[in-house]
Amino acid sequence: MSTFAYRNGILHAEDLPLDRLMDQVGTPAFVYSQTALESAYRRFAGALKEAGLNAQVCYAVKANPHLAVIRCFAELGAGADVVSEGELRRALAAGIPGEKIVFAGVGKSDAEMALGLASGILQFNVESREELRRLDSVARNQGKTAPVALRVNPDVDAKTHAKITTGKSENKFGIDFQDVPELLQLADALPGVRIEGLAVHIGSQITQLGPFEAAFQRIADLFTQLRDAGHDLKRLDAGGGLGIAYQGEGLPSVEDYAAVVRRTLGPLGVPLIFEPGRHLVGDAGILLSRVLFVKQGRSRRFVILDAAMNDLLRPALYDAWHEILPLREARPDTEQQACDVVGPVCESSDVFASGRVLPELGPGDGLAICAAGAYGATMSSTYNSRLPAPEVMVSGGSYSIIRTRPGHADLMAMEQLPEWS
Amino acid sequence: MSTFAYRNGILHAEDLPLDRLMDQVGTPAFVYSQTALESAYRRFAGALKEAGLNAQVCYAVKANPHLAVIRCFAELGAGADVVSEGELRRALAAGIPGEKIVFAGVGKSDAEMALGLASGILQFNVESREELRRLDSVARNQGKTAPVALRVNPDVDAKTHAKITTGKSENKFGIDFQDVPELLQLADALPGVRIEGLAVHIGSQITQLGPFEAAFQRIADLFTQLRDAGHDLKRLDAGGGLGIAYQGEGLPSVEDYAAVVRRTLGPLGVPLIFEPGRHLVGDAGILLSRVLFVKQGRSRRFVILDAAMNDLLRPALYDAWHEILPLREARPDTEQQACDVVGPVCESSDVFASGRVLPELGPGDGLAICAAGAYGATMSSTYNSRLPAPEVMVSGGSYSIIRTRPGHADLMAMEQLPEWS
Repeated sequence: MSTFAYRNGILHAEDLPLDRLMDQVGTPAFVYSQTALESAYRRFAGALKEAGLNAQVCYAVKANPHLAVIRCFAELGAGADVVSEGELRRALAAGIPGEKIVFAGVGKSDAEMALGLASGILQFNVESREELRRLDSVARNQGKTAPVALRVNPDVDAKTHAKITTGKSENKFGIDFQDVPELLQLADALPGVRIEGLAVHIGSQITQLGPFEAAFQRIADLFTQLRDAGHDLKRLDAGGGLGIAYQGEGLPSVEDYAAVVRRTLGPLGVPLIFEPGRHLVGDAGILLSRVLFVKQGRSRRFVILDAAMNDLLRPALYDAWHEILPLREARPDTEQQACDVVGPVCESSDVFASGRVLPELGPGDGLAICAAGAYGATMSSTYNSRLPAPEVMVSGGSYSIIRTRPGHADLMAMEQLPEWS
Repeated sequence: MSTFAYRNGILHAEDLPLDRLMDQVGTPAFVYSQTALESAYRRFAGALKEAGLNAQVCYAVKANPHLAVIRCFAELGAGADVVSEGELRRALAAGIPGEKIVFAGVGKSDAEMALGLASGILQFNVESREELRRLDSVARNQGKTAPVALRVNPDVDAKTHAKITTGKSENKFGIDFQDVPELLQLADALPGVRIEGLAVHIGSQITQLGPFEAAFQRIADLFTQLRDAGHDLKRLDAGGGLGIAYQGEGLPSVEDYAAVVRRTLGPLGVPLIFEPGRHLVGDAGILLSRVLFVKQGRSRRFVILDAAMNDLLRPALYDAWHEILPLREARPDTEQQACDVVGPVCESSDVFASGRVLPELGPGDGLAICAAGAYGATMSSTYNSRLPAPEVMVSGGSYSIIRTRPGHADLMAMEQLPEWS
C-alpha cells in the first residue's frame, strides 16, 4: 500500500493529496493508482520469469473490468482470463490479442463460444462433459476446432471464504479428477474440439502456499500421467487465487509462490498460464468517502459515511475486513475510539467496519476504504437509487476521471412506462 | 402468486405464456405483473380502511424503484417512502406529490435535505440528534421549517434475517427510546425543524405479528405520554416490514395486521403512515432464465442457468430461498431429482438453490425464479461484465419492455481511458 501513504499529514495517492481530489471529484469515488497496478504486474510476472518459468500472465478481468485497468496490463504484455462475452469484448477493446485470451467459467452460452472462436482465443477452459459437447457443436457449425483446456477440480481446500472457494469436489466448478481420462477420450471423438492442456483454479484470496502446492502437485502428476498415455498436452493453466493482505495478515511473497510453481509445475517443461486478478488490482484502489454524521448511540458510536454497501459490497457479502484511513493523519497523541463505520443504505448489513478504532471524526471529514481496487466497482449497484461512484485513475501528481458519475436523469432515462400507460 | 400460474401446462404471467415471452425478450429478464402490483396495493390499503384507520400508504421505493412500478401505485393513491435523492426524484417523476412523501434513512446529505424541503415533502424521518441539528441548519438557510418525525428505536427483535433487522438498540437505525424527550426539547430550540410525529420501523420480511404488536404498543404508549406532556404530535408513521411467503411459510393476513394496528395505534386517533415495500411488489415479479447446461458431477447435479447472482443477489447475500418453477409444468408422474441451481458467475455463492427437487431439465428450458419483484433488479450489478437484465411489465395478455437490455458497447462507452494514455 505504499502508493497510498501519508505525506505532511495528508493521505496521498502517489503524489496527489486525496483531500484535494475529494473536493474536485466528490464522494464516494473509487481511486486507482496506475503505478500500483504496474508495479503489482511487474512484480508478479517478474517473479515467474526469475524462477525460469515460461509463463503468460492472463489478468483475471472479473476483479476490475475497467478498460483503463485492462489496458494498463495489456501494455505490459498481459493476456486476459475472461468469463463472459462482456469480459471478452473488454479485453479485446483494451488491446489484448485473442491469442492471449483464456475463456473460463461454468456457463458459457452458444453465443459466447461463437464469439470466442471468432476472436481466435488461446483456449476455452471447459468445466464439464456437457460443455465440451456444446462447444464441439458450436465450433463445427463454424468449421473450426476449438482449443480446449480441461479445468480439473483437484479437490483441495483453499482455506478461504466459503463463497469464493472453488476447488472442492462438491461445488459447481471443474471436472472431477477421475473423469479426466474419459473426457479426453470423448474429445478424440469430437472433431470440433482439441484438448491442448489442463487448467486448475482453487479459489480466490488464498493466503497460504500449502493449498497451491497440493493442487499443483496433483495436476502435475495427472498431466504427466496423461502425456505418458499419449495425450498431446501442450500447456498448463495454473489459475489465480493469490490473495492480498486486507488486514495485515501474513502473505507469501510472489517469489515464494513462484518457487512453489517451479518445484511442482516447472518439471513439466510446458508453457504455463497464470490468472491473477485481485492480487494485481486489490491494493491499487481505494474507495474515497466523506463522513455525513457521527451518531452517538447509548451503547455504540456510528460514523455514517456517504459510501455504502451498493458501492463496495464485500463487507456485506463476505464479512470482509477493509482498512479505513482518515485522509488527515491522526497525531500520535490523538484520542481514538471504537466506532461502527456504516453507510446510509437502509440495511443492517450496510456496515464497513464494527468496533473499529479511529480518531475523532466529524461531518465532511474524508476517509479512504482501502484495498477496494478488486471486486469493488464491478460488484457495485444502484441499490437505494444511489448513483454509481465515479472511477479515477491517478498517475504521479495527475488524475483522470475514467468513469464519470451519471446524473439521476441519466438513470431514469433508461426506463420506460408501459406502452398502455 | 396466482398471477403466475400454469395454464395448459405452461407457466403464465397473467394471460401471457412465459415461454413465448422468453423467446421474444431473451433471458435473463425480470417480469412483473401489473395486476399483481395493483391487487397487492388494493388489498393492503383496503384492509387498513376496512379497519377504520386513517391511513396513508407510502410505498417503500427501495424494494423496486422502477418508475413504472411507482407510477402504478401513484395512480392508486399511494405516497412514497424514500431514502435518497434518487428515490425522491423517482417518486416525484412518477407523479407522487411532495405532500405524500416521507424521507427516511440514517444518512441524508445536505443536498438531499435541501431537495426534500424544496419538494415540500410531508416529513423527514430523523434518526439522530446530529441529523436534527443538520436539518435545522439546512432548513434555516432556505428560510423554511422542516416537518419532522422522530424515528424511534423500540428495541424489539423483529425475528428476521440479521442483515435486515432494524429495530434492536445496537444497530444504526433510529433514536433510543429514552432519548426522545430530550430530542423534542432540543427541537423546540431549533427554529428550522418542527416535530410533527413519531416513526417506527423494525425491519423487513417480518412474518409474525408479535414483533409488530410489541413495537406498536411501545410507540403508542410513548406517543400518548409525550402528547400528555404537551407536545403537539400530529401523526404516527408505523413503517413497513410485512413479509411475503417465499417458501410457503405461514404469513399473517393483512386483515390480521390491520387488526393489530387498530388495537395498538387506533386509539391515538391520529393519521397513520404505512411503508410497505416487499409486501406490495415481491410476489408480483419473477426472474425468467434459461438452462445453459445440466452438469452431472460425481456427487451432485448442477443446473446451470443464464441468470446469476449479479441479477438476483438475495440468495448469495441473505441465503434467501426462492421458489423455482419450470415454464413447462411437470406431469404428475415425472421423475424429479435434487439438483443445485446455479448461475455462471465465478463464485461459489452464485447458487440459487441447493438440493432443490426439480423435474428433468435440459439446455434451453425456461425457468421462473419466483418472488423476484422486490430487491431484485434494484440490487443487481454488472458483475462479471454481464449485461443488466431487462424489465418487462405484463398486463392481461400484453407486455411492454420497461427497461431494455443495453449492449456491451453501451456499457463500455461509459468508461474513458486516462487523458495521458
